[in-house]
This record gives sequence, structure tokens and C-alpha cells, in this order.
Amino acid sequence: MARRYDSRTTIFSPEGRLYQVEYAMEAISNAGAAIGLRAVDGVVLAAEKKITSKLLDTNAVGVRREKMYKLDDHVACAVAGITADANILINTCRLAAQRYTLTYQEPIPVEQLVRALCDNKQGYTQYGGLRPFGVSLLYAGWDDDRQFQLYQSDPSGNYGGWKATAIGGNHAAAQNLLKQEYKDDITMTDAVKLIVKVLSKTMDSTTLTPDKVELSTIMRNEETGRVVYKVYDEADLKPLLDAVNEEKEKDKEKES
Amino acid sequence: MARRYDSRTTIFSPEGRLYQVEYAMEAISNAGAAIGLRAVDGVVLAAEKKITSKLLDTNAVGVRREKMYKLDDHVACAVAGITADANILINTCRLAAQRYTLTYQEPIPVEQLVRALCDNKQGYTQYGGLRPFGVSLLYAGWDDDRQFQLYQSDPSGNYGGWKATAIGGNHAAAQNLLKQEYKDDITMTDAVKLIVKVLSKTMDSTTLTPDKVELSTIMRNEETGRVVYKVYDEADLKPLLDAVNEEKEKDKEKES
Amino acid sequence: MARRYDSRTTIFSPEGRLYQVEYAMEAISNAGAAIGLRAVDGVVLAAEKKITSKLLDTNAVGVRREKMYKLDDHVACAVAGITADANILINTCRLAAQRYTLTYQEPIPVEQLVRALCDNKQGYTQYGGLRPFGVSLLYAGWDDDRQFQLYQSDPSGNYGGWKATAIGGNHAAAQNLLKQEYKDDITMTDAVKLIVKVLSKTMDSTTLTPDKVELSTIMRNEETGRVVYKVYDEADLKPLLDAVNEEKEKDKEKES
Amino acid sequence: MARRYDSRTTIFSPEGRLYQVEYAMEAISNAGAAIGLRAVDGVVLAAEKKITSKLLDTNAVGVRREKMYKLDDHVACAVAGITADANILINTCRLAAQRYTLTYQEPIPVEQLVRALCDNKQGYTQYGGLRPFGVSLLYAGWDDDRQFQLYQSDPSGNYGGWKATAIGGNHAAAQNLLKQEYKDDITMTDAVKLIVKVLSKTMDSTTLTPDKVELSTIMRNEETGRVVYKVYDEADLKPLLDAVNEEKEKDKEKES
Amino acid sequence: MARRYDSRTTIFSPEGRLYQVEYAMEAISNAGAAIGLRAVDGVVLAAEKKITSKLLDTNAVGVRREKMYKLDDHVACAVAGITADANILINTCRLAAQRYTLTYQEPIPVEQLVRALCDNKQGYTQYGGLRPFGVSLLYAGWDDDRQFQLYQSDPSGNYGGWKATAIGGNHAAAQNLLKQEYKDDITMTDAVKLIVKVLSKTMDSTTLTPDKVELSTIMRNEETGRVVYKVYDEADLKPLLDAVNEEKEKDKEKES
Amino acid sequence: MARRYDSRTTIFSPEGRLYQVEYAMEAISNAGAAIGLRAVDGVVLAAEKKITSKLLDTNAVGVRREKMYKLDDHVACAVAGITADANILINTCRLAAQRYTLTYQEPIPVEQLVRALCDNKQGYTQYGGLRPFGVSLLYAGWDDDRQFQLYQSDPSGNYGGWKATAIGGNHAAAQNLLKQEYKDDITMTDAVKLIVKVLSKTMDSTTLTPDKVELSTIMRNEETGRVVYKVYDEADLKPLLDAVNEEKEKDKEKES
Amino acid sequence: MARRYDSRTTIFSPEGRLYQVEYAMEAISNAGAAIGLRAVDGVVLAAEKKITSKLLDTNAVGVRREKMYKLDDHVACAVAGITADANILINTCRLAAQRYTLTYQEPIPVEQLVRALCDNKQGYTQYGGLRPFGVSLLYAGWDDDRQFQLYQSDPSGNYGGWKATAIGGNHAAAQNLLKQEYKDDITMTDAVKLIVKVLSKTMDSTTLTPDKVELSTIMRNEETGRVVYKVYDEADLKPLLDAVNEEKEKDKEKES
Repeated sequence: MARRYDSRTTIFSPEGRLYQVEYAMEAISNAGAAIGLRAVDGVVLAAEKKITSKLLDTNAVGVRREKMYKLDDHVACAVAGITADANILINTCRLAAQRYTLTYQEPIPVEQLVRALCDNKQGYTQYGGLRPFGVSLLYAGWDDDRQFQLYQSDPSGNYGGWKATAIGGNHAAAQNLLKQEYKDDITMTDAVKLIVKVLSKTMDSTTLTPDKVELSTIMRNEETGRVVYKVYDEADLKPLLDAVNEEKEKDKEKES
Repeated sequence: MARRYDSRTTIFSPEGRLYQVEYAMEAISNAGAAIGLRAVDGVVLAAEKKITSKLLDTNAVGVRREKMYKLDDHVACAVAGITADANILINTCRLAAQRYTLTYQEPIPVEQLVRALCDNKQGYTQYGGLRPFGVSLLYAGWDDDRQFQLYQSDPSGNYGGWKATAIGGNHAAAQNLLKQEYKDDITMTDAVKLIVKVLSKTMDSTTLTPDKVELSTIMRNEETGRVVYKVYDEADLKPLLDAVNEEKEKDKEKES
Repeated sequence: MARRYDSRTTIFSPEGRLYQVEYAMEAISNAGAAIGLRAVDGVVLAAEKKITSKLLDTNAVGVRREKMYKLDDHVACAVAGITADANILINTCRLAAQRYTLTYQEPIPVEQLVRALCDNKQGYTQYGGLRPFGVSLLYAGWDDDRQFQLYQSDPSGNYGGWKATAIGGNHAAAQNLLKQEYKDDITMTDAVKLIVKVLSKTMDSTTLTPDKVELSTIMRNEETGRVVYKVYDEADLKPLLDAVNEEKEKDKEKES
Repeated sequence: MARRYDSRTTIFSPEGRLYQVEYAMEAISNAGAAIGLRAVDGVVLAAEKKITSKLLDTNAVGVRREKMYKLDDHVACAVAGITADANILINTCRLAAQRYTLTYQEPIPVEQLVRALCDNKQGYTQYGGLRPFGVSLLYAGWDDDRQFQLYQSDPSGNYGGWKATAIGGNHAAAQNLLKQEYKDDITMTDAVKLIVKVLSKTMDSTTLTPDKVELSTIMRNEETGRVVYKVYDEADLKPLLDAVNEEKEKDKEKES
Repeated sequence: MARRYDSRTTIFSPEGRLYQVEYAMEAISNAGAAIGLRAVDGVVLAAEKKITSKLLDTNAVGVRREKMYKLDDHVACAVAGITADANILINTCRLAAQRYTLTYQEPIPVEQLVRALCDNKQGYTQYGGLRPFGVSLLYAGWDDDRQFQLYQSDPSGNYGGWKATAIGGNHAAAQNLLKQEYKDDITMTDAVKLIVKVLSKTMDSTTLTPDKVELSTIMRNEETGRVVYKVYDEADLKPLLDAVNEEKEKDKEKES
Repeated sequence: MARRYDSRTTIFSPEGRLYQVEYAMEAISNAGAAIGLRAVDGVVLAAEKKITSKLLDTNAVGVRREKMYKLDDHVACAVAGITADANILINTCRLAAQRYTLTYQEPIPVEQLVRALCDNKQGYTQYGGLRPFGVSLLYAGWDDDRQFQLYQSDPSGNYGGWKATAIGGNHAAAQNLLKQEYKDDITMTDAVKLIVKVLSKTMDSTTLTPDKVELSTIMRNEETGRVVYKVYDEADLKPLLDAVNEEKEKDKEKES
Repeated sequence: MARRYDSRTTIFSPEGRLYQVEYAMEAISNAGAAIGLRAVDGVVLAAEKKITSKLLDTNAVGVRREKMYKLDDHVACAVAGITADANILINTCRLAAQRYTLTYQEPIPVEQLVRALCDNKQGYTQYGGLRPFGVSLLYAGWDDDRQFQLYQSDPSGNYGGWKATAIGGNHAAAQNLLKQEYKDDITMTDAVKLIVKVLSKTMDSTTLTPDKVELSTIMRNEETGRVVYKVYDEADLKPLLDAVNEEKEKDKEKES
């Protein structure tokens, strides 16, 4: 029965569902996970890289991470889903941010950027001859008004503000873990540790290695007041992953 | 049989029905309820938040409530249905209001704003390659001509003026309750209490908590004559919800 | 067999029928009735309001009746069918009337207004990706050339001039009654009584109440020569409805 | 088999037929007949009015006959088929005629007007997303070059010049009668009588009444040389119809 | 199997056929024949008129023959197929010819005119939402460069130069006859006789009458050097047809 | 199974095939063959004319050969497939060549012309509502940079440079023969003989006659350095064909 | 089941797959392989030519290799898939590179060029009435910022940076071989040898010949600092292929 209503973005099913949007969500569930976490002094994003090969040019990719993108000086995002779709949306975001800065001579408020993108996404769920974007995004940013913020948007064009959330493969498991361990007064030091731990538990592989993980933070330089977007390189990641791997080992020993 | 006529917005069924519009209504029935109530000295809107998580950033969301939006200084709305669709319509409303103010140097009359939106909605039920907007709205506003007003619009583009009404999940139950308890000379103090009571009876959860309820009011500052849109924060909501929860308890005791 | 030809506005059936237009007529048959009657000194329109609730804001609605619309100073209309569709058509009418006045510095002749609208409607029965408007209209007006006039138009874009006619639910019954009782020299005083009587017989409810009936008249102020559009309020309607209700009672008594 | 090719205007059937055009012709066969006849000193058009009701405003309709339209000072037409479609075509004609007069400062030749319309009609039989116009027309006119002329056009965009012809219901029967009784040297006095007689034999009703017949003539004022378009009113029609009714009576008596 | 590929102009069948083009050819096969013949001193076109009625206004039609059209002073054409389609193509031709004359101050070469039209026709066999033109044309013309010429084009947009050829009903039979009897040094006097003879043998009716035949010639006035397009009227046709009818009679007598 | 993917140009089959392109190739296989051969001092093109009739105006056609077209002073082409499609492409080529000359004041390089056309063709295999061009082309040309060149393009928009190649009916057989007999140091004198021989073996008819063969050459006048495009007329062809026919006879005698 | 979702680019399957994109990948798997390898001092591209014929004009083709294209002075690419599609994309690339140079007066960074193309490709997987490009590309380039780089893009619009990778037929086998033998400090001398070896193992033919292989390199002239794009001609390829063929022979001997 569902089949009659699932081949076009422009029809409701009798139960009021938009199947093409749901199928796009399904596409995202098969992609590598991405997790975001807001601490009192910053926001951290982490993601699982599914395509790993020793032949990948980590230098080239390292500059432009597979799943992390800087949108403006004060906003970055992590994506889960079809990368080619994500690239289009990221272009849209960057243009919107630049246009705002040009017009108002100040950085675009984070939520305004998120909303502009989501309104664009919504059109792809309502007009004929289009499919929804097969990608969910996490946005980490800082602005004068609301300080550090974390948003999530999905193919329907819905979005929300979160303290901590996860998208992509095993996102439900990740969200449960976050619920248990997240504390409102968490600092970035702990947040980074927590996010690596959560990511490790949702990933299929037993041992975390730097080539499977992407991690970046949005923080503020207390002196200059400038927002700093930092992408963790292998050296930064190593100790974090080792700690988690160790803990995992211990857990296993306990179990056995 | 219905199936032949339900996959396009641009065809009537032999009985003269537009199935896609009815399916859009179905989508709204599954969403959280929203209730509006017009008192002699103001209008109150209340809504049930279905997506609640301790990880939600209530600060970010608190500024821009999930189901309540200010459209202009003198008009606000509550939505039930697909949030991404609602965002598009709210943009349309805000632009229409601004354009009117720019042209005529006075706030847009409430009904004119409602009607402009509904004419826009209607197009999505008549032209090919489109689906109707999956969202109903309640509009609360004040203007010189007709004072406090409450309107409701649905995906077909129909709208009407109401003293009290409800949209979304269990709206029929809510409307029945309103019919029994609404009085034409109700004041805002009682209206706010009544709306919380009605909302509590239509929600599935047994105990009302501030994170599940949104409430806002449109009133007038008697001295300045300015219209004031107020969103209730947790402190405002607490005593209201406690009173209702208490009453509920008593009712239960009586029943048992 | 009919099924092959009923899903698009742009095809004829082998018998030369346009099914989508017929289905739109069906939509109108399910709506509340509207009746028009031309007297020697004016035109009267009456309609049945199907959506009645004590919670409806009769004040808000009272200003802009559900089924009666002023199109210009000298023309008004009553609609039966999908209200959202009607709103679009009414906008079109008002714009056409204003444009004419602006260009020629005199009010648009009534039939010219009717025809402009009908040509617009016709397009929706001939071009792909559209559905016909699901609404019939009665137009009451006065112009220098042809004095008081009453027109009726339907979804196909057809229209005609009438002395008395009815659209919407039970319109056939109403038309029969009108045929029996209409007299060419009827005055507005009698016309108003007759129209209420006819409306009462075609409505399902046994007792007429002001919240179920809309009534308006187009007359001319003999002194100023200005056309006057009057919408009957509750006080105006009460005695009319009481008289009809009384008569009904008597009829029943006779029957029993 | 035909069914595969009859749902779009843009495909030929294997036999080279355009079914949608044929179905449009079918729509015309169900409409009231229209007959045209060219005499040496004028052209006469007659038509059967199918929609008759004592409630019809013959005054309003009388000014703008249901099936007769003046296109320009020297051309008029009679239609059979969907009236709403006819209105669109008549607008097109009137505009074409005005444009020609404006450009060349002389009335448009009759055939040129007919052809312009037919080229417009043809497009509706060749382009996707459209249906053919469901209407046939008879054009009566006079121009300097070819004097009195009578043309007929149908939904395919074909047209031809005729001495006498008929469209709509029972047009075949009417054409047979015309063939038998038409004479090349017929004068308008006889032509009017003949056309009424032919119309009466093709109509279902036994007795002709003025409300069922429309009749108009294109003649020339011999003194001024101006073309005169005359629509017969009830007083003009009465004696003509009485004569025919009488004859009919006699025929019946003979038969019995 | 063919059925899957015959409902759109924009698809090839697996054998590389374009069915809609073939169906358009079929439409032409049902139309009256048209024959063209190039002599040393001119070109003659003849056609069979299928629609004949004593009520047809031969004067009106006589001016604008049903199947013969002058395209420019030096080119004429005969058509077979859907007349409404032909009218559109003839307009295109006339415009192309006028534009060329305006630009280059000399008449358009005949083949260039034919080719321009055929390129236009081709588009209707390649783009979606269109059907091919259901008409074949014979073009007779003279230009400085190639003297007298005869071309034929069909719905596919193909065209070719011929000494003698036939299109429409029974065109194969006509072409066979032409092959047997055509001589390269034929003069117009004989050509006209031959073409009437061929036409008579391909027509269904036994006796040729002027109202069933159209005949026109393109010749050159030897003194002025101007190209002359002549349409044969009844007086011109009579002796030609009589001669052919007589011969036919003789043949019959011989047979019996 | 193939059937699901062969009715639109815009879909791949599961094996990654574009059926409509393959069907267009099929259309070409049914057309008369065209062969191209590059010698050290020129390029020769030959083609089989399938439509031959003694009534064809070889003069008219002779000027504009059925399958050979001059594109610019230094490039010519031979086509196989739907002639009407070829005409459109040839127009495109000629315009492209003229535009280049106008812009750069030198003839367009041959491959650049071929490529421009092929990019145009490709679009017809990727966009909706279109069919591929049903025609393959051979291009013979000379330019300063690469001297004499021969290219072949097909409906997919692919093209390649060849020493000798064949398109259309029996092209595989022709290509085999060419492989056996082609020598890199062949001169035009031998090339012309070889191409006629190859053509004769792939044609169905036993005896070659000038009306069935088209042949043209691109060579360079050694003195002036100008490129010369020569179309062989009957006198030129006769001895060539006779020689081949003789040889054929001998072969037959040997066989028997 | 898959069949319901595989005929349009604009729908997701219930598992979130885009079948048309997958089918396009299938088209590429059937094409000749292309391999890219980044060494410390350059990048090398190699490809298998599937269409080989002694009649191919290797001179013409030699200038514009079948599978290797120079995009700008510092970037080249190798393609696998539908050549006509590749041509369109290469045009897009060249234009993008020229535009960048014109605007910024410096060569376009390699990844920026790759990304611009991929964003273009993505559109063909999301909008109606289009099919994805049936082609994958390898990009080899050098820029100031990231030195030598190698990218791969596919029909979905995804791309990535690689040290060594393969597309087209048997790309999985080639990638495995590369994983085993690639070393990060490989120099161009070894890289060229390795790539030929890998290509030879993935090709069906037993012996490598220059007409079946294309090979090109991007290196830097150490003195001038200019990027040099070199296409290997037969003389360059011969010794490389001989070496590989010899080795192959030895391997065979060992095996036996």
C-alpha cells in the first residue's frame, strides 16, 4: 500500500506521511555517524569515517576533511549522508554567511544560517521533479547573542537546538549514551573525551584509529575574543583514542 | 477506488474531494496539539511539545519556541504539523507584514495577514507538481479595527475567526472541552488557566511539565497602548501547571 | 470506462464530457446552498452556513461573512463550494473591478465583471497541471445600463443572467420552489421573505437560527442614487426567521 | 484499442486519427444546433437555446444572446458547444479584429478573421497539456472584397466557406433539409423563413417559442452602405415562429 | 509490441522506427490526393477535393482553394492531410519568404524555402509534448538559379526534388502511372492533360467534375519574365475534364 | 526486462545501457551506407542512395546531394540515417563554422567542428523530453594543423578519427574490407577506386549505376593551396563504376 | 522490488538508494580501466584503450587521446565511461579553469576545479528529466598550496584525494595491486613502471601493445618551475611495455 505514495516528493500518503523524506533519512542511517556536544566553553564535533584506505591521500583530504566543513569563521558543521548532496548545501551555507556579512558587516547569527539552509531543504520536499537532500547536518557555532550553540537539521528541513546529539549510523545508541553521561556544566576537556568514548561505542570496529575518526572544536580565544575552529590532526587524536581503547580493553577483561 | 484520485493535488475525486488536502490534514492530526483562546483583554495560545529530550538546548529553542512564532509586533501564531512547512509559511507572513507596514505606515490588519497566507496556501492545492502545506496555524493578534482576534487556517487555505479553537492531535476533544467551559466574558487570568487545563486533558502524558508545554499571550499595555507578546518561561508556567496537576490528582482520587 | 478520462482536466471523454469539471460540480453540491433573487427594486442573496459553532467569532466573521462578499460598491456575490478557491476568485474580481474604475473612471458593468472571472475559470478546465475551481458564485449588482442584475457562474466558466436561482446543496429543490413562487413584479420586501422561506425548505435543520443564515441585499438609495450593499445582522434576521419558523410549525400541525 | 491513443491531444492513433479532436466534436453534437444561411442580400444565423427557464433573466441574456455574438461591426457568429470555451475564442476574435482596424484603418476581411482564430484553435490539437476547444462556430460577415460570407469552423481548426450549413445537435438532418430547399438566388426574406423552418424540424420540441430560438442577421443599409447586425427580439420572432408552427400543424393533420 | 513505442514522438522503437511519424503518414493516406508535375516550361499541381457539397460557397473557397496555396509570387504548394495543420505550415512559409525578400531584396530560392519549413517540421518529431504535422506538401516554384522546380515534403521533415510525384490517397498508384507516362521533354500543354488523367485514375469517383478537382500552374511570362501563378477556374477545367471523362468512357467500352 | 528502461533517453538500464541511443543506432543500420577513406593527398566519401526513382529530379537533388553536404570551404560530410535529423545537424555545423571564421578570421579546425556538433548531440541523450538524433556522420576535411582528416560521429555524441571507416547498412562488412585493403600510403587515385569497390560489395544491388552512388572528394590545389571539394557527377562516376562492375562479372565467372 | 525506484533520478528507494546513480556506475565498470598514481615528484595516469583498430587515425587521436585530456596547464584528467558525457564535463572544467585564471590571475587550485565539476554532476542526480553523467574521472595536478595531487570523482558527484586509485573495468583488482605495491616515497621512474604493470594485470589481453595503452604524466621542470604535462608516444611506451611483457612471460614460465 505504501508503494503508491512513495515515488514522488509531492504527495502525502493517506496517513499524512512523506515517504521520500523518510527514505532519505534511511540513506543517512547507512552513513557513518556524526556526534555533536556543547560544553560551557565550546562545541565539539566528531565523526566516523567509513571510507578508509591506506591509498587515500590523507594530506589532501586532511585539509578538507570528509565530514567536517568550516562554514564561516564562527560556524562549522559535520555531515552524515550523501557527500555530494552535502557539498551543495555547504556551498549554500557559505554563500548565505558571506552575503550576510557583506550586508550587515557582522557575522551571521548561527540559527539564522541554519534556518536559511533548512528553508532551502524544505523546497526539495514539496516541489515536483526533485528529491530531498540525502544528508543530515550538525552545526557548531558561536555568536554574541546566544554564545555556543549546536544545531541539527535533517532532510525534511526540520532543525533543532541541542546540548548533545548524533546523526547517521547508530545515532539512537549514541544519543542514549549522551543522555546518560552528559552534564550541563561539562567543560571542553571532558567533552572531547566523552565524544570520543561515545563514538567508539557506536562504531563497528573494535579499535579506534586516527584514520577512522574526525574531530573538530569551536572555542573562543579568551584574550582576543575570536572564535577558533580547530581540526584535530593525528597527533591530537592519538592520546584521546588510546585512552578510549585502553578503557575498552579493561571493560572486556571485566566482562570475561 | 479512492486510490485513483489521491496521488495528485490537481484532481477531484468523483465525489468532489481533494484527497491530498485530506491527507495533509491527517499529517496534522498526528502532531502535537495547539490551542487558542480569546479573552476580553487578550489572546492566549498554548501548545504541546512532542519532542522533548533532556539534551535539547532549551535556551536556543527557548528563544525561538518550537510551535510559537511572532509574526509582527501585534500578531503571533501557533502551529501544528510539519515544522519545516510551517517555517516557510511564517517567512511568508513576516514578509507580508513588513511589506504592508512599509507601504501604509501602519500595522497590517490581522485578518488581512491571515488571508494573504491562505491565498498562498490555496495555490498548493490547485497547481500541478506541488503538495499542500502539511500545517495548520492559529493566529492571535490585535488591531485598531477589531481589537483582539483569533484565527485558524488549514492546508486547504480555509480560515475562520474563533473565540476558542484547537488544532493538531486530539483537537476534537479539546474543542468539546472549550465549548463547555468557554465564557464570552472570560478574562486573561482565567483564560490562561482554562487553556492549560484543556491542554492537559488532551495530552497523553499524565503530569504536565514546563518542557512539554508552550504558552504565549497577546495583550495590550493599558498605559502605552502597545501590543505585548509574551512567551511564558518555566517560572511563569510552573504555578499554572502545578495547579492543573493537583486538580488532576484530586479527580483521580475521586474516581477511585 | 469513465475512469480513463476523469483524472485530467485536459482530456475529453469519448462522449465529449470533461469529468473533472463535473466532479468539481459535485464538490459544490455538498456545500451549503446559496440563493439569489432579483426584485424590481433590488437583489437579495441568502446562504446557508454549514459550519456553526458557539465558539466561532461571529464578530470577526460577521464583518466578513463566510459566504457573502462585496466585490465593488455596486456588486456583491454569494459563493457555494470550496471557500479557499472562492477567496482566490474574489481577489481576481476585486482587482478587475478596481482596474476598470481606474482606467475608465466609472464602475465596471456587472456582466463584464462576471465574464472576466469566467474567462479566468475556463483556463482551469483546459490547461494541464491544474484543476477547475470548486466553487459556484451568484453575483448581485446594479449598473446604469441594465439596472439590477443577478448572475450565476459555475466551475466550467459558464454563466447566465437569472431572475432567481440557487447553487450548492439542494439547489434543484430551491429552484423548483422559486419557479412556483417568483413573480416578475416582486418587491424587495417580499423578495426577502420569499428567499428566507425557500432557504428554510432546502436546509436540513428544522428551525432557522441567525447563525445558520447569511442574507444581504443590493438596493439603491433613491435620493443619492448610490448603490447600497447591506448585510443583515442578527437583529435584522430575527423577525424574518421567526415568521418562517412559525409558518413551518403551522404546516406541520396541518400535516399531523 | 482506440483507448491507447485517445487520452492526449499530442498523439496520432495508428490509423492517423486524433481522438481528442473527435471527442470534442462529440461534445458539440450534444449541444443545441446553430444554422447559418447566406442570401443574396445578407446572412442569417439561427440557433436553438437548450437552457430555458422562466427564471432566466431574458433581459440580461437578451442583450448578450447565449449563442450569438457580434465580433466586429461587420461580422457576427453563432456557436455550438461549450459556452465557456466559446467566450475565450470570441475574445480572441474581437481582439484580432480591433488590432487589424488599428493597424490598417479598415475592417478585417472576414476570412482573415476566421483563419486567425482557426490557427489559434489548431495549436490546441498539437501541443501537450492542452485539450481542443469544445466548440464549433458559424461566422456571418460582409466585406468589400467578397461581399456577404458565411464560414464554419470546428475544434480541429478546419474551416470552410458555405452557402448554408449547420453545427451542433442534429446538424446532419439540418444540412439535408438545407440542401433540398436552398436556392442560390434566395433573398433574406425567404432565408429567414427557411432557417426557422429548418431549425424547427431539427429541434426536439414540437412547438417553437421565442425563448428557445435565437436569430440574427447581417445586412447592409443600402443608403449608408453600413453593415447592420440585427438581433431578432420576441416581437420580431413571433410571426415567424407562428407561421412555422401552423405549417407543422397542417403537416400533422395531413399525416393523420 | 509496437504499442510500447508508438505513443510519443520522442522515442525510437527497438527497430529504430518513429511510430508517431508513421501514423501521421497514415493520416495523409486517408486524405485526397495531390499530384505535381514539372514540365520544361512550368510546373502543374492538381488535387482531389474530398469535401464537396452543393452548399459549399465555391466563391469563397474558390478564391482560397482548399488544397492549393500561393506561398510567394514565385512559389505555390498543394497539400494532402489535415488542413488545419497545413494552414500553420503555410503561414510559416509565407513569413519565411517575406523575411528573405526583406533582407536580401530578392525572392527566396525555392529549395531554401522548402528546407526552412522542413527543419521546422523535424522539431515536431524530436521534442516532447508535440505531435508531428499531419500533412505532406508539394511545392512548385521557379527561381533564377534552378528554373522550374517541384519538391515534396512529409511529416518527418524529409523532402526531395521530383519531376513528377503524388501524395495523399492512392499516391502509389498515381506514381506508377506517372512513371509510365512522364517524359523529360513534356510541355505544360501535355503536362496539364497528363496530370488530370492521372488524377482521374486515382480518384474513386467515376466521372470528374470541376468541384472535385483543383488545378494550378506556375509558368513564366516570356515577355516580362515574371512568374505567373494561375488557378484554373471551372471554365478552364471543364474541357480538360471532359476529355478525360470521354477517354474513360471509351476504355470502358473497350473493356466490355 | 529491457523494456522498462528503453522508453526514455534519461534513464540507464541496470547494466548501464542507454537503450534509446542503441535504438537510434538501429535506425541508422537500416539506412544506406556511407564510406570514408583518407589518402595521403585527400579524403574521399562515398554513399549509397537508397531512394532512386526515374522521377526524382536529379538536377535539383544533384546540386544538393542526398547524403553529401559541404559544411565549410574545407570540410564536407556524408550522412547515414534520418535525413531530416541530418539537416538540423548540418545547419548547426555550418553556423558553428561561420561563427568561428567571423571571430578568428580563419577556418575552424576540423576536429573542433566535429566536437562542437557532438557536444550538441550528447545533450539529446541526457535531457528529458527529447530523442537522440537518428543519424551518423562522416566528416572529411583539411586544416593547417593536421592536414587531411576523416572523422565519424554517432547518435551518442561519440566521435573518432579514422583512416577509413563506414556507417549505415552493412557497415561492418565494409569495415572488414577496408581493413584488408587499406594501405597507409594510398593515393587518391587508388582511394577512389577502393571506396567504389567496397561500396559495391556492401550494396544489395548487383550492378552499380550512377543514380545509386554519391561520391565526393576533399583535395588541395597544389598551386593555390586552396581546399577543393568536388562532387562527382555522372560522367565522373561512369568509368569508376564500369570498372567495378566488370571486375564483379569476372569474379562471378571464376566462382561458376 | 527495486524496479519501482530505478527509473528516475529523483527518487530514493526505501533503503535510501539512488538506483540511477548505481546504474551509471555500472556503465563505467564496462569501460576500459584508468589508473592514477601520485609519486613524490609527479603524478602518472594510465588507461586502457578498448576500441582499437588499425584503421583508427592514431595521428588525429594521438593529438587528442581517447581517455586523457589536458584541463589546464597544471591539471589533466583520465576518464572511464561514456566518452560523449566526458566531453561535456571536460568542457565544463576547462571553462571553470579559464574563468578562475581570468578573475584571479593565477591557476585554479586543483581541488577547487574538481569540486566545481562535482557540484555540477550532483545536480544530475537530483533534478527531474535528467540522467547522471555516465563517467568517472581521475584528475592529476599540481598547485602551489598542496603540490602534486590526484583526485577521483564518480557519477554521484562524490570525489576524494588519493595516492593511487583506479576506475573503470577491473578497478577493484587494480586497487588491490596498488595497495600491495604502492610506497609513499615512490618516484616517478618507479611509478610509471608500477602503473604499467598494474594496468597490464587488469587488462584482458595478454600482451601490452602501445595502441592499447595511454599514459601521461604531470611533472615539474625543476629549473623553470613550470608544470609539464607529457603524453607518452609509442617510442616512450615501447620499452615500458616490453619490460612488463617480459616479466609476464617469466611469471608464466614459473607457473608452468
